[in-house]
Amino acid sequence: MSGDRPIVAVVGVGLIGGSLGMALRRRNLADVVGLGRSEERLALAGELGAVDRFSTQAADVIPGAAHVVVCTPVSVMPEMFKLMGPHLSEGAVVSDAGSTKRSVMSDAARWLPPGAAFAGAHPMAGSDKAGVGAASADLFEGSVCVVVEGASPDAAYSVGKLWQSVGARVVRLAADDHDRLVAASSHLPHACAAALVLAVSATDGAMDLTAGGFADSTRIAASSPGMWRDICMANADELSAALRGYGAQLERFAGMLGSADAEGVLAFFEEAARIREGLEPKV
Amino acid sequence: MSGDRPIVAVVGVGLIGGSLGMALRRRNLADVVGLGRSEERLALAGELGAVDRFSTQAADVIPGAAHVVVCTPVSVMPEMFKLMGPHLSEGAVVSDAGSTKRSVMSDAARWLPPGAAFAGAHPMAGSDKAGVGAASADLFEGSVCVVVEGASPDAAYSVGKLWQSVGARVVRLAADDHDRLVAASSHLPHACAAALVLAVSATDGAMDLTAGGFADSTRIAASSPGMWRDICMANADELSAALRGYGAQLERFAGMLGSADAEGVLAFFEEAARIREGLEPKV
Repeated sequence: MSGDRPIVAVVGVGLIGGSLGMALRRRNLADVVGLGRSEERLALAGELGAVDRFSTQAADVIPGAAHVVVCTPVSVMPEMFKLMGPHLSEGAVVSDAGSTKRSVMSDAARWLPPGAAFAGAHPMAGSDKAGVGAASADLFEGSVCVVVEGASPDAAYSVGKLWQSVGARVVRLAADDHDRLVAASSHLPHACAAALVLAVSATDGAMDLTAGGFADSTRIAASSPGMWRDICMANADELSAALRGYGAQLERFAGMLGSADAEGVLAFFEEAARIREGLEPKV
Repeated sequence: MSGDRPIVAVVGVGLIGGSLGMALRRRNLADVVGLGRSEERLALAGELGAVDRFSTQAADVIPGAAHVVVCTPVSVMPEMFKLMGPHLSEGAVVSDAGSTKRSVMSDAARWLPPGAAFAGAHPMAGSDKAGVGAASADLFEGSVCVVVEGASPDAAYSVGKLWQSVGARVVRLAADDHDRLVAASSHLPHACAAALVLAVSATDGAMDLTAGGFADSTRIAASSPGMWRDICMANADELSAALRGYGAQLERFAGMLGSADAEGVLAFFEEAARIREGLEPKV
């Protein structure tokens, strides 16, 4: 396509992969090629400007790519690593965009060709909507992207540069630390939102009396159930620990309610409000 | 002020009282007078167009009012009922805008003059911001307002008409039912949001890895701690029951995680997503 621009291959052109492609193309940083399982979804990605060209065959798009970014659900990654392996060019850097990192690092080590340069990444941006139709060239502006170092520090450096180039702030973490921290910051809120919807809807008539607070609190409960099943199962141990920490806070609150401890309830809300107000505004 | 328009007295001109005043004045439905404890806050309400005139003295603004709507925190209502009692005009209808109804109905019965026409109301609109500075003439458009019948069906009818006139959809409920339903639909989400902030912030580094989902889920944790202490204490029994129902959902989820029940986790997220998607869009 171009003489100078590198080729970036996006594998799985949905919300994240599509937004990455749009962001790179909008900034003239790369020629973007798409690999996917559905011709129809790939064609839509092409129409929406997420990719320059696309194929359902790895042999068509992986050779020549300097970066290969796997943006499929984590459960599909082993299959993708196997498919692309034989077609990777010398020096190609492989990474992903999955929400859990221990399982992906282990899948990459197992299924990519020996010596392949891999570093995991987790761009922490999203939407309650899925698919390339919800993708945007601005999705990563001001967001955080965690990069996890594997066997190749050079690959991690290169993957960090890629995400920085589309507006993300890069944080380097070990896979263990990543999974422990996002279990609290991301996976726990999803489980809580779903549980809240189920608990409120189990009370006849209560859904008719919800307002903006409930709507905000449960917005992420409308996210893709399959994707969140995969994430929760891949990070079950850390999510279980996060749920225990959250349960302890709820029990503390319930105990204060039960003993009519108005001062304790006030302190609980005051501390939460103080911390929440300190959160940087995120779009 | 006017010849024909009724006078509506708003007691406590904050977010809800101020929005009610603005909505009535914008629609030319009433002359709005404000009663409050702070001259400064009342003056701001006047500047922002929430009231035509105001005073810190009940004797100045309560006589002549056809409606008196107490929009103070629920903990202050007994004092307000006592203060205004001697100044109520013949036929005046008294109501409130509190988030719990059993305690307010009982306070009204105890502290208003015998025979006063009272009906409780709960306009279910709000914001994470407090004060008349956040008030808006459109706040109640499309919202639900619960009206609770007391000794006077005529008062309940009249209060319902008032809230309908500013755009709310009126739902009639008994005080017991109101408190049970909002414990789930409104008070529970507040407790969950605060507990989530405290649990995530207790994990060193996790707050740096939050994204839009956490921000949405915890927006209401920044609401007024004092107001929410009052609400939770006044509705402690029903909120405790709602917390138990929520805890049961969380335990069910944790159990499925622990037993690697991916199908169960998927069904949990699928049901929550289906219900959440059915929620009518609320601003």
